[in-house]
Amino acid sequence: MRKLVFVRHGLSQWNALNLFTGWEDVDLSDKGIEEAKDAGKKIKEAGIHFDIAYTSYLKRAIKTSHYVLEESDQLFIPEIKSWRLNERHYGALQGLNKQETADKYGADQVQLWRRSYDTLPPLVDENDPASATKDPKYALLDKRSVPGGENLKVTLERALPFWEDHIAPSLLKGETVLVAAHGNSLRALAKHIENISDDDIMDLEIPTGQPLVYELNDDLTLIKKYYL
Amino acid sequence: MRKLVFVRHGLSQWNALNLFTGWEDVDLSDKGIEEAKDAGKKIKEAGIHFDIAYTSYLKRAIKTSHYVLEESDQLFIPEIKSWRLNERHYGALQGLNKQETADKYGADQVQLWRRSYDTLPPLVDENDPASATKDPKYALLDKRSVPGGENLKVTLERALPFWEDHIAPSLLKGETVLVAAHGNSLRALAKHIENISDDDIMDLEIPTGQPLVYELNDDLTLIKKYYL
Repeated sequence: MRKLVFVRHGLSQWNALNLFTGWEDVDLSDKGIEEAKDAGKKIKEAGIHFDIAYTSYLKRAIKTSHYVLEESDQLFIPEIKSWRLNERHYGALQGLNKQETADKYGADQVQLWRRSYDTLPPLVDENDPASATKDPKYALLDKRSVPGGENLKVTLERALPFWEDHIAPSLLKGETVLVAAHGNSLRALAKHIENISDDDIMDLEIPTGQPLVYELNDDLTLIKKYYL
Repeated sequence: MRKLVFVRHGLSQWNALNLFTGWEDVDLSDKGIEEAKDAGKKIKEAGIHFDIAYTSYLKRAIKTSHYVLEESDQLFIPEIKSWRLNERHYGALQGLNKQETADKYGADQVQLWRRSYDTLPPLVDENDPASATKDPKYALLDKRSVPGGENLKVTLERALPFWEDHIAPSLLKGETVLVAAHGNSLRALAKHIENISDDDIMDLEIPTGQPLVYELNDDLTLIKKYYL
């Protein structure tokens, strides 16, 4: 039996401000730090020993990984970071207030951007100073691969190679794996793992700070999932 | 010009208690956390951008790496951990009070254990519950390679393969490298980099929390070193 644990990072400093975040590298709030530590304590109580941890390039996920590992006495295990586990890129909506955006574009349009599987948000142009192509984090990434905005479909398309090349091989080797990431990158991977339809995935919400355990067969098909 | 930065972790919770620490996985003290953050701020002010960070299996060094990277806005860079960067293993002295040990064995003997290049401390037997062979951190290491106690000479012998296989190749590729580690593992590497004699190395002390910058030629010979 293969074991994979997802932890979605807790509240960030922009949650309180009700801003679209996406690839903006916003820190955890104090509450988010507590959520991460609590997740680590639950993992320790459950006696789960990880062989490897995967996280994104964004500090709210990286720090969640560190708090989880520290609280569960396994800070020494290898940790690999990838932009492919980043939150969904929210395009030109990043940094905007959600309510103000709804006032401007209408609640229906914002709901579509937030909840549709394949509707893209307004995109950030590569030449815009706000483009992720200007961020040193992505300096080693082909500019043509840096998104200007993503829906969940595109998020899955760029997360899936990381599943194929890193997470799945770890599990197939028999390793127990932690993935500390974001609401939408985890939801995208959950869609793949649980074989959820394009329609149904939009109803799946992974709560913050609650370790989600997947028990998988040797061929990585799902046995069961549960929250700690 | 190649650039390598050492950061020795700051005060741990056992420093205040005056205990021999070695491979005991003791946490940073509040002061040690401040020292690590200050090191990160200095690195940020100096405009140093790392391509990769190396640290040990011990949380006081790992957390120092994390604080340094966070304070210098580069938490996203890859970080590799290795037991080869661990502090010198202090053998059966680990956990003992330094003053009590001096009272028992004599100040000269303790001075010899602490300051001689090639005198081993009393060793921990592999079957002793205190042996590092019982620690899950080292479960993937051949038991015969797990030390029961080290002097600086042995510390260098086990750290050197990590220099040869990881740090030096990174530098030779042109990467700027952070090593967040311990007084004696850093001193051992400094001996190799600076070509210091067995006698003279015992006089080298790397202060805690002060980033030590090495500028190196293309063949990794020393141009100059300085503290930030």
